[in-house]
Amino acid sequence: MRVISEQQLDDGVLERRFILGDIPGILWTSPSGPAPAPLILVGHPGGLNRMYPRMAGRARHAVAEGFAAATIELPGSGDRPPSPDAEQARADLRGALAAGEPVTDDIVDRLVLPLADQAVPEWQTALDSLLALPEIEGPVGYSGGIISIGVRLAMVEPRVTAAVLFAGSFVPRVIFEDARQVTVPVQVLLQWDDENNDRQQALDLFDALGSTEKTLHANMGGHTGVPAFEGDSANRFFARHLK
Amino acid sequence: MRVISEQQLDDGVLERRFILGDIPGILWTSPSGPAPAPLILVGHPGGLNRMYPRMAGRARHAVAEGFAAATIELPGSGDRPPSPDAEQARADLRGALAAGEPVTDDIVDRLVLPLADQAVPEWQTALDSLLALPEIEGPVGYSGGIISIGVRLAMVEPRVTAAVLFAGSFVPRVIFEDARQVTVPVQVLLQWDDENNDRQQALDLFDALGSTEKTLHANMGGHTGVPAFEGDSANRFFARHLK
Repeated sequence: MRVISEQQLDDGVLERRFILGDIPGILWTSPSGPAPAPLILVGHPGGLNRMYPRMAGRARHAVAEGFAAATIELPGSGDRPPSPDAEQARADLRGALAAGEPVTDDIVDRLVLPLADQAVPEWQTALDSLLALPEIEGPVGYSGGIISIGVRLAMVEPRVTAAVLFAGSFVPRVIFEDARQVTVPVQVLLQWDDENNDRQQALDLFDALGSTEKTLHANMGGHTGVPAFEGDSANRFFARHLK
Repeated sequence: MRVISEQQLDDGVLERRFILGDIPGILWTSPSGPAPAPLILVGHPGGLNRMYPRMAGRARHAVAEGFAAATIELPGSGDRPPSPDAEQARADLRGALAAGEPVTDDIVDRLVLPLADQAVPEWQTALDSLLALPEIEGPVGYSGGIISIGVRLAMVEPRVTAAVLFAGSFVPRVIFEDARQVTVPVQVLLQWDDENNDRQQALDLFDALGSTEKTLHANMGGHTGVPAFEGDSANRFFARHLK
């Protein structure tokens, strides 16, 4: 992990951009807070620069509550080499939606599974480096982004001990099986009228999660309309489970 | 409204038991807090003395957050005269459940509608008296109890400007129509595996509510297993909308 830039934001948060192998990432920490802090991994749909304003907001909020926060770019997104297979799956998805045809399991599998297969070990590698820093310690929470990545990371990575999952993307059937093996506390966010997301599928995925402590927060509005108070709620959830 | 007893609890909360006409009630206020406070009506399934420990806990929590809290007995419950029709409906409900038969609309209507028809004006009368006290002012929130009463009170009573509703009881079809006319912010609590409650019906009722700001909080466990952190969450919801 190589830090390539460092700046102190106006609220005192230290923001470091880094490269891990060939994967860009961002780390937010408090220079003044009690070190070492528990870590929240900031999930996203891909495209660090495009998503930066919203992610930085979530991260700074988390740092203000005593956490460190970090994210890495997803495979095929942002400045990383594009994946022709993923591009094709995305084109097929757009085509099906435009034609009013059903989005087949095949399209969803091609869209999500290779991405999750590649991203999850990358987040685990990032954890190795991040947890080696003196200002960060476990436990680790994962928050938001593509829910299939969050579910699988929560399933396979024992250092992730709590997760806020955003039910806002297509979910391959195999991920429902993964969900049954998730046992850490989870808080699932659902936008009730999410134009990109099937509500019943989201409820079924919530039901499938194996965790004994799981909470669903459904709010009105579309995909990007998650209310600001859910940021507070996520921080309180992580405070209960990571501190 | 006639105060019949008054005591200061160990956390400094002033608890007054009162009679309003022939309806017993309880009022919790802070003797030291900034007066006058917004009011939270503490809903319940009937039986003030039976429900006292849990209700007093919720009320004291609310008072600690700067609210006043009050409740009144439901028609036919506790020390109030029993309703033969309601007793018959309850017996029919128990009979249907014991026989594994469906709970018919007729049973649900007889169980809930006369209760709501009588209770809602009583809560409104209580509001008249409570809001006349110098230590209480609006706005008013309604929290918990029988969801049909909460929905109808939120629909008909303009002084109620926010409601936390507990989806934990049978809902007559006509209440779904009432729900469409509710416009105040609502937070709906659902116990995912509530043995007394149909999950899909609860989701449908949440969907039916006309409020543009509505949030569903679903948690694991049975009817009485609402997690303690939902008390904090309810207080924050009311703080957003009543302060």
